[in-house]
Amino acid sequence: MSAPDLLSFAKAVSSGAIRVVDLTQTLSPEFPIIALPPEFGQCAPFRLEEISRYDERGPAWYWNNFTVGEHTGTHFDAPIHWVSGKDLPNNAVDTIAPEKFIAPVCVIDCSADSTADPDFLLTVERIESWEKQHGRIEAGSWVFLRTDWSKRDYKAYANLKEDGAHTPGPAAEAVKWLVEERDVLGFGTETIGTDAGQAHLFNPPFPAHFFMHGKGRYGLQCLTNLDQLPAKGAVVVAAPLKIKQGSGSPLRVLALIASK
Amino acid sequence: MSAPDLLSFAKAVSSGAIRVVDLTQTLSPEFPIIALPPEFGQCAPFRLEEISRYDERGPAWYWNNFTVGEHTGTHFDAPIHWVSGKDLPNNAVDTIAPEKFIAPVCVIDCSADSTADPDFLLTVERIESWEKQHGRIEAGSWVFLRTDWSKRDYKAYANLKEDGAHTPGPAAEAVKWLVEERDVLGFGTETIGTDAGQAHLFNPPFPAHFFMHGKGRYGLQCLTNLDQLPAKGAVVVAAPLKIKQGSGSPLRVLALIASK
Ligand SMILES: [Mn+2]
Ligand SMILES: [Mn+2]
Repeated sequence: MSAPDLLSFAKAVSSGAIRVVDLTQTLSPEFPIIALPPEFGQCAPFRLEEISRYDERGPAWYWNNFTVGEHTGTHFDAPIHWVSGKDLPNNAVDTIAPEKFIAPVCVIDCSADSTADPDFLLTVERIESWEKQHGRIEAGSWVFLRTDWSKRDYKAYANLKEDGAHTPGPAAEAVKWLVEERDVLGFGTETIGTDAGQAHLFNPPFPAHFFMHGKGRYGLQCLTNLDQLPAKGAVVVAAPLKIKQGSGSPLRVLALIASK
Repeated sequence: MSAPDLLSFAKAVSSGAIRVVDLTQTLSPEFPIIALPPEFGQCAPFRLEEISRYDERGPAWYWNNFTVGEHTGTHFDAPIHWVSGKDLPNNAVDTIAPEKFIAPVCVIDCSADSTADPDFLLTVERIESWEKQHGRIEAGSWVFLRTDWSKRDYKAYANLKEDGAHTPGPAAEAVKWLVEERDVLGFGTETIGTDAGQAHLFNPPFPAHFFMHGKGRYGLQCLTNLDQLPAKGAVVVAAPLKIKQGSGSPLRVLALIASK
């Protein structure tokens, strides 16, 4: 792409000819985080500590410190997050090639199914029927599962029952297929994780983590505004913090959509 | 911009026809942070706490919690950070329009001057001479001051003397001029802050903060790899975390450069 084309791209963003949709949930202490069984280490919720606010602690400035988990809020999963990806090259947020942070996205709308059944699972059959309508998923694309889960209140979002969370996600075979047959860049969801709420019972457990990260692919979760995306044609910008050997990070996720 | 053009853009990124340069310093406990006089509140350094690493705390997964300041490492300054911008609309990282996060950049190379004089100040005269060579700074652009400060070891990077930090930055009149006469999006530096090390003595104090944020403009600092950017023609992606009413945030900053 030529330099004038690149500047046309930037102009199209500022003029609105390319629309920028924010796919990020606001980082606040209230936003639900994943809860593991108590014998495991836990992800920290977002906590803000005010340093000064135009006061005696800093007369002209306002700023905060904060504590957060790498997997809190809208966040990115790197391959090193899972044992299946632990020995891959460039598997942490600071070593992934930065060109991976910009990629097209295919959005599979399963919002009606997920409303009907919180344990809805995305299958290969379902993806193939999506492809019949929208064309083949191209190598190097993100695949996002739209469930409208981001529209729920926090309690219904976590949807915790006595036997754990009940939230939609991908079937094991579907994740394996997306990696092996479609060579996708990664998998993204609106829910707390890339895997279904009951995925600890799957074979293998947590297949989105196992297969995606085992093959050097990425995850995005706690996404919102997926209902504003076309099934195909949008481009996602998702660049995690450059944490030294980080397994993931909260980040700003943007989607670019052409106006015509 | 049309949908095919947007997908061509994404293809150009993955093929390398657009090069993606990472302008971000790695977040690690060692990276220097700003040190204020002791009577003021202080910005937290980056601190990582391991939650589990494929062990009894989490058999299949590795992840961390971390503490950080909004102004630690390579980071974004929002208008609400400064008292001059405190009542502006959309002045926090969660309310800035997301299309502001993608914009062209002008890079003014003052690396030789800064090596010769750590208190080097960018003046209007100097910017005008840059414009004679490279053309006018267009409205809505970032202006980055290249000093090669990012190549220094940490001690020389902070460059603290008995009377405070000695690091290059913009003269007060230059910042005012960039905002009022060139309508820039913001100002970016390789140093710890957007202002010079001795800017507490300027009139007004901290003019990059005072003028930029007072007019709703942004700051970026602790940038690196500015020596890889052309003077004009690159596009910057700089999207801060969506912290509720956040004054800034660590972020990943990417530059896109056309190959021809
Ligand atoms: Mn995660
Ligand atoms: Mn700052």
